[in-house]
Amino acid sequence: MRRPTKERVKTVAQIDGIRNSDAGTRLDPWHGAYASRAHGLRSSEIRALFAVVSRPEVVSLAGGMPNLKDLPLDKLAESARSLIQRHGAQAMQYGSGQGWEPLRQRITEVMTYDGIQADPDDVVVTTGSQQALDLVSEIFLEKGDVVLAEAPSYVGALGTFRAYEGEVVHIEMDDDGLIPEALEEAIRDLRAQGRTIKFLYTIPNFHNPAGVTLSEERRPQIVEICKREHVLIVEDNPYGLLGFHSDPLPALRSYNPEGVVYLGSFSKMFAPGFRIGWALAPHAIRDKLVLASESAILSPSMVGQMAIEGYLSNYDWYSQVKTYRGMYRERSEAMLSALEDKLPGLEWTKPEGGFYTWLKLPEGLDAKAMLPRAVTGLVAYVSGTAFYADGRGGDHIRLSFCYPPPEEIKEGVRRLARVIHAEKELVDMFGTNVRTEIPDDAVSAPAPDQV
Amino acid sequence: MRRPTKERVKTVAQIDGIRNSDAGTRLDPWHGAYASRAHGLRSSEIRALFAVVSRPEVVSLAGGMPNLKDLPLDKLAESARSLIQRHGAQAMQYGSGQGWEPLRQRITEVMTYDGIQADPDDVVVTTGSQQALDLVSEIFLEKGDVVLAEAPSYVGALGTFRAYEGEVVHIEMDDDGLIPEALEEAIRDLRAQGRTIKFLYTIPNFHNPAGVTLSEERRPQIVEICKREHVLIVEDNPYGLLGFHSDPLPALRSYNPEGVVYLGSFSKMFAPGFRIGWALAPHAIRDKLVLASESAILSPSMVGQMAIEGYLSNYDWYSQVKTYRGMYRERSEAMLSALEDKLPGLEWTKPEGGFYTWLKLPEGLDAKAMLPRAVTGLVAYVSGTAFYADGRGGDHIRLSFCYPPPEEIKEGVRRLARVIHAEKELVDMFGTNVRTEIPDDAVSAPAPDQV
Repeated sequence: MRRPTKERVKTVAQIDGIRNSDAGTRLDPWHGAYASRAHGLRSSEIRALFAVVSRPEVVSLAGGMPNLKDLPLDKLAESARSLIQRHGAQAMQYGSGQGWEPLRQRITEVMTYDGIQADPDDVVVTTGSQQALDLVSEIFLEKGDVVLAEAPSYVGALGTFRAYEGEVVHIEMDDDGLIPEALEEAIRDLRAQGRTIKFLYTIPNFHNPAGVTLSEERRPQIVEICKREHVLIVEDNPYGLLGFHSDPLPALRSYNPEGVVYLGSFSKMFAPGFRIGWALAPHAIRDKLVLASESAILSPSMVGQMAIEGYLSNYDWYSQVKTYRGMYRERSEAMLSALEDKLPGLEWTKPEGGFYTWLKLPEGLDAKAMLPRAVTGLVAYVSGTAFYADGRGGDHIRLSFCYPPPEEIKEGVRRLARVIHAEKELVDMFGTNVRTEIPDDAVSAPAPDQV
Repeated sequence: MRRPTKERVKTVAQIDGIRNSDAGTRLDPWHGAYASRAHGLRSSEIRALFAVVSRPEVVSLAGGMPNLKDLPLDKLAESARSLIQRHGAQAMQYGSGQGWEPLRQRITEVMTYDGIQADPDDVVVTTGSQQALDLVSEIFLEKGDVVLAEAPSYVGALGTFRAYEGEVVHIEMDDDGLIPEALEEAIRDLRAQGRTIKFLYTIPNFHNPAGVTLSEERRPQIVEICKREHVLIVEDNPYGLLGFHSDPLPALRSYNPEGVVYLGSFSKMFAPGFRIGWALAPHAIRDKLVLASESAILSPSMVGQMAIEGYLSNYDWYSQVKTYRGMYRERSEAMLSALEDKLPGLEWTKPEGGFYTWLKLPEGLDAKAMLPRAVTGLVAYVSGTAFYADGRGGDHIRLSFCYPPPEEIKEGVRRLARVIHAEKELVDMFGTNVRTEIPDDAVSAPAPDQV
C-alpha cells in the first residue's frame, strides 16, 4: 500500500539538501487554497534522515530516542491492568482541557527538583511538550515576529516557530550557555530595526543540540535582562533531571515566575509513548494555553495522564531517573573517549547530562555534503544545518549517545573518524566538497520520527 | 490550590452570556504581546456549563460524553497488561508522525462501513478528531477566509475556525440535512462579495447538535456542487456507526475521494480516553497534515494507537458498536416519548442515531436566559446559541440522551417541561425574558469538558 518509489526519490532529495515541500504541487488541485503558513511546513532534516538510518548495519548517532531498556515493564504492565480494571470508566472517558488535577499536583512535585514552587492550577498538561511549544507559538506569534533562540537551537522548535511564521534570530552561546551580552545586543539591535520580539526560547540544561548548560552565574543575568526588556522567556527543560553528576541548577522560572513559561516532559525522564508533557505559565498566559489546547485536542489522554500519575505515585521514579543518569553517563563517556582517541585535534562540547555533543568539523568540510558518504560508511549523524533557521551550521554535526550501547557508540565514532579523514583528504586535494547521491538501496522504510 | 472565588465569578459570567476572554487583562503584563488569533480564543458555552451541571442532583441533558458502561473493562485491562509486557519498549517509545501503520490499516477497514475504499497511506492518526480539525484549519485558514457550515454546527469546530480567524457562514438545514440549493446560493453570494471560501464543514450523520442526517439523495448533490465550485469538503463523522437501525449511508468521501477530507474518531464507537482519531485526505493535503501534526505534537501516542489497534484486531468491535446502538436507541426513545408526553405542541428533530435532538422553544423564550432557571430546576441543556457563529440559536436548545439512563432522561424532560411552562407564563405575562443570576452555590468544581 505504500508508495516506495515516490518516497525514495523524496527522501534522497531531502538528504541532499533540497527542500521540496512544494514538490508535486502542480498535481495538487488544492494548492491555491492553502494558508501561507502551510507553505512554511517542511520535513525536518532529521525526519528525512530516519528513512536512511533505520538499516540495522548503520550505527545511528543521529536520533534522540531515549533508551527504555531499564524500564520495569512487568510492573508497568501490571499497573496498566489495574488502572483499566479499577478506573477504566474514568481513564477511557474525556478529561478536562487543562489536565487531570492529581497529575498536575505530581508535576509540581517533579518541578521542585528545578527549584520551582508552583501551584497545580498554573500547570497545563499537553500532548508532549511539543504541543506546549505549539500552543505558546499559536498564542504569541504573528507573521514576522522575532523569536530569540540559542545558536544552534532545537530543530522541532524551529519548525514550530516557522509554522506560525515567526522568524528566529539566533544568539551566540559558549561553554557556559547563552551569552548575556549577546542577548542584550540582539534585543537592542532588533528594536532599533523596529522588529517585534515575542520571546526568548532557551534550553538551559544539556542543550539540544549543543550539549552545554547555562551556568548558575548567568541564570539570574539572563532573567534580569529579559525582565528589564520585557521579553518573555520560554524555558524548555526535557533533559534537566538527566544530569550525570547532580540535580539540576535552578530553573530560570525560579527567578521570575511571572516572566517565564516553563515546558516540561516525561519523554526523557520516563518514556515518550504516552505523549504527556506540560507547561507551567503565568496565570493569564495559562488561561490562553488552556483555551488553545481545548481548541486543538479538547483534552489530553486520560489513560496517559492516569498512567503517569500512577507511575509517579507508586514507583520510586527518582531511582529510575538515577538509573537513567548512570546509563547515559556511561554512553557519554564512551563517546567522548572515542572522540579523543579517534579525532584528536577536533573540538566538541563536554555535556554534563542529556543526550548530545556538538562537534566542529575540520576547516573546509560540509556536514550536509558529507552525510551521504557517512551513511555509506555505515554511520549517521545530524548535520548542524538542521539546528539553524538561517542556513548556518554546515561546520558542525550533532552526535547523540542516548540510544546505541557503548560498544556501538565507539564503533560509530571509529567509522565517523574514517569518513572525516577521507573527506579531509578530498578537500585538501580538490579544495571543495563533492556531493554524492545516496544509492537507492540505502533508503528503507520510514522509521520512528522524533528529535 | 484552586482559586474558587475567581473561577466562580468567571463561570457565572459566562453562563450569563458575557464573553470575558479578556477579563483581567489589565493585570496581565503580557497582554500586549499576544497574537491577534489569541484574542479569538474563548471558553465555549458548553465548557462553562460543565462547572454548573456537575452537581449530582442536576439531570444533565447537556453533555456529549459517551456512555462507557458496556465496555468489557476486565478484558481491556488484560489487553493493556499484555500490550505493555510484550510490546512495552515499542509502545512507550516515540512513533511516526503520520501514525502507526497497522492502526492505519485497521482504520481503512472501519471506514469500509461508510462505503470508503482507502489506502492506509492516506490516513493520518491524530489526538482525537479534534486535532484533525485543528490541523485542517491550520493549513487552510487565513484571517477572514470563509468556512461554510450547517446552521447550527458543532461548537468545537466553530471554536477552532475562530482560533484560526476564519469566519463561519451557516447554511440552512431541514430534516434531510444540508439543503443543496442553500449551499449553491451561499457560494454564489459569497463569491459575488469577493469572499474566499476555503471549505464546507459538514456532519452528515446524526448531526451535532441538530440530530438530523443528510439524505442519501442529497449526498451526491452536495458533492457535485462542491466539485463544480471547487470547494473542499471536510466531512466530520464521529457518530456514523451509531445509527439506531442501520449501517451508515455512504460517506461524501465515497463519491469524490479527491475533494473530501474525512475525519473519524474512536471516541464514540469505542472510547475517548486514548484520544485517537484520524483524517483521511487527498494525498497532497495528507502530506501537509502530517507535517503540521509533527510540528504540533511530534507523533500521536504509541500506547494509545497500539491499544486501539489491539481492540480492533482482537475484539468483535462491531458487536460492541451494535450494543452501543441499542443502548443509545433506548435512551433516544425515552427522550422522544417524554417530549411527546410533556411538551406536546413543540418541535424537535427525530434522530436516527447519535446523541442529540434539537428542540425549538415556544415563541418568545430565550434559551440562554432560561438556562439559569433550568439549572435551578435541576435540569441542564445547551443553549442553541453555542452552535452558531453569528449570534443566532436563542430559540433552540440541544438535548443529549447519551449519558443519563432512560429513567433519568424522562425525569430530566419532566423538569425541563416545568421550566419551559413557567418561562412561557412569565413571557406571556410580562412579554419579556427576565435574566437571573445563578446562585453561587450552584457552581461546583469544573467537571470533564467535552462537547
